[in-house]
Amino acid sequence: MDIKAYLSGKRVLVDSYLKSYFDRPLSPPVLSDAVKYSLFAGGKRIRPILALASYEACGGDPKDIIPQAAALELIHTYSLIHDDLPAMDNDDLRRGKPTSHKVFGEAIAILAGDALLTEAFYMMTIVNRRFSGAGIRPSVLLKAVREVAFSAGASGMVGGQVQDILSENAEPDSDMLEFIHLHKTASFIAASVKMGPILAGSGKKILKALTIYGENTGLVFQIIDDILDIEGTTGALGKTTGSDDRKKKMTYPSLFGLEGARQRAEYLILKAENAIAAFSSEADPLRGIAQYLLYRRT
Amino acid sequence: MDIKAYLSGKRVLVDSYLKSYFDRPLSPPVLSDAVKYSLFAGGKRIRPILALASYEACGGDPKDIIPQAAALELIHTYSLIHDDLPAMDNDDLRRGKPTSHKVFGEAIAILAGDALLTEAFYMMTIVNRRFSGAGIRPSVLLKAVREVAFSAGASGMVGGQVQDILSENAEPDSDMLEFIHLHKTASFIAASVKMGPILAGSGKKILKALTIYGENTGLVFQIIDDILDIEGTTGALGKTTGSDDRKKKMTYPSLFGLEGARQRAEYLILKAENAIAAFSSEADPLRGIAQYLLYRRT
Repeated sequence: MDIKAYLSGKRVLVDSYLKSYFDRPLSPPVLSDAVKYSLFAGGKRIRPILALASYEACGGDPKDIIPQAAALELIHTYSLIHDDLPAMDNDDLRRGKPTSHKVFGEAIAILAGDALLTEAFYMMTIVNRRFSGAGIRPSVLLKAVREVAFSAGASGMVGGQVQDILSENAEPDSDMLEFIHLHKTASFIAASVKMGPILAGSGKKILKALTIYGENTGLVFQIIDDILDIEGTTGALGKTTGSDDRKKKMTYPSLFGLEGARQRAEYLILKAENAIAAFSSEADPLRGIAQYLLYRRT
Repeated sequence: MDIKAYLSGKRVLVDSYLKSYFDRPLSPPVLSDAVKYSLFAGGKRIRPILALASYEACGGDPKDIIPQAAALELIHTYSLIHDDLPAMDNDDLRRGKPTSHKVFGEAIAILAGDALLTEAFYMMTIVNRRFSGAGIRPSVLLKAVREVAFSAGASGMVGGQVQDILSENAEPDSDMLEFIHLHKTASFIAASVKMGPILAGSGKKILKALTIYGENTGLVFQIIDDILDIEGTTGALGKTTGSDDRKKKMTYPSLFGLEGARQRAEYLILKAENAIAAFSSEADPLRGIAQYLLYRRT
């Protein structure tokens, strides 16, 4: 299948939902400006697309869960805004543009992040009746809220970010690195994939398989990010490269070398693909995304 | 009724739930420390207690909704941590103790706030079966999630905080003041009260009455806060008094004087009480809380 066409088609779906959702101005206007500035800065929408593709793999129509998928991007965007803050990673550039606090100041950047995180949970509760008319059951939506909150919070993304900050300048340690990658990145990407079976009401076996797919592709996402921070150019990535090294961040390439990191990524993608080997052709987008994540250059 | 005994009884209920919930250590441990430091700093638990009392006024057993009530305190605590940050109100003292960023540094303080906000939505989905065994329906829990996210987010608390920051040093303006109070404080307190009828599945008339009660007591809460910032002592309040004046914050007393502010608070409490005049004695705790909020000294 043409995975690039699939990705760009689904990205349009997510973007047009987000655009219409944030059309109503927030008050004060600067909050709208800050939220939109970061949300529409050219993100690839990987997490929403993983949710849509996973829902499709479970036999659902992706159009039914656009609000839930789009909500994942709100959470991802909030995490970038807060991670970039001077007190955290102190990054000036994100997706080729000055970071939120550089444009709006720290206070508004913190609050724009808070607004996006909170709004995500509102968006999660929206039943999209505009398309197939199916409507997702409340019990299932509640499970999705629970999964997203768990994976984005103290037991997931936030915990990983805390450890990431603590580990700067620390002795290289593969257990600690594994903890950071699993919590900071893989946990929320796995949750994005799990939106599929949760919202489709799939059985335990399918949920398990897609969880394995999600955790492994999530780890690969982070490993490739770390590789691109070394191999990529600031121009192509839209963020300052080489920053991990300058901050003495613990990364996969710093522990195992570029070749070791790439081999690890290939192995994990194989595990992800094997987990969904028994799925029908409806899982082809997930298979394509796994390969795309491995070979992406930006 | 003995409102002080009621408040302290319900506070114990909320505190013991929160204590047992955060007994399991988070990883890394400093995240547990930061979360517990702010969460167990001696808060009055007004928002959870309002939810419990309102649920009682709707004929429910408060024990059934302890997780949903306690989640409100997580959100309140996150908002205090972020509001106190150097980039925001830059406060050093909160509830008689150094603020989170003074103890843990800015990065951990921001992340502890993020963790509390996210965990609140996880906690909202927990069905408390330990007590009456009733169990709240998923459709109703989902409505509660929606209400809390709306009132705490861009359209509520976060929007109000943005305006509050923008209004420092601005020309006094009663419309702007009203916007700040309604959004920053009253919106989330009203949502706390609305947890009662929403979770009890009450009809529109009851929801409307309790919304009016909640918005008015919420406004009073902020007005009295502003009065205490002038009249109170740092020792009694556990936070630096006179800070509104130093920061040139727009407050009710600064616009209408202390006497004008107090008269306004009395009028709003009357409106709150009238809204629930037709309720039975099950609403007596709400009546007691309205009077308590008006006459509190800390």
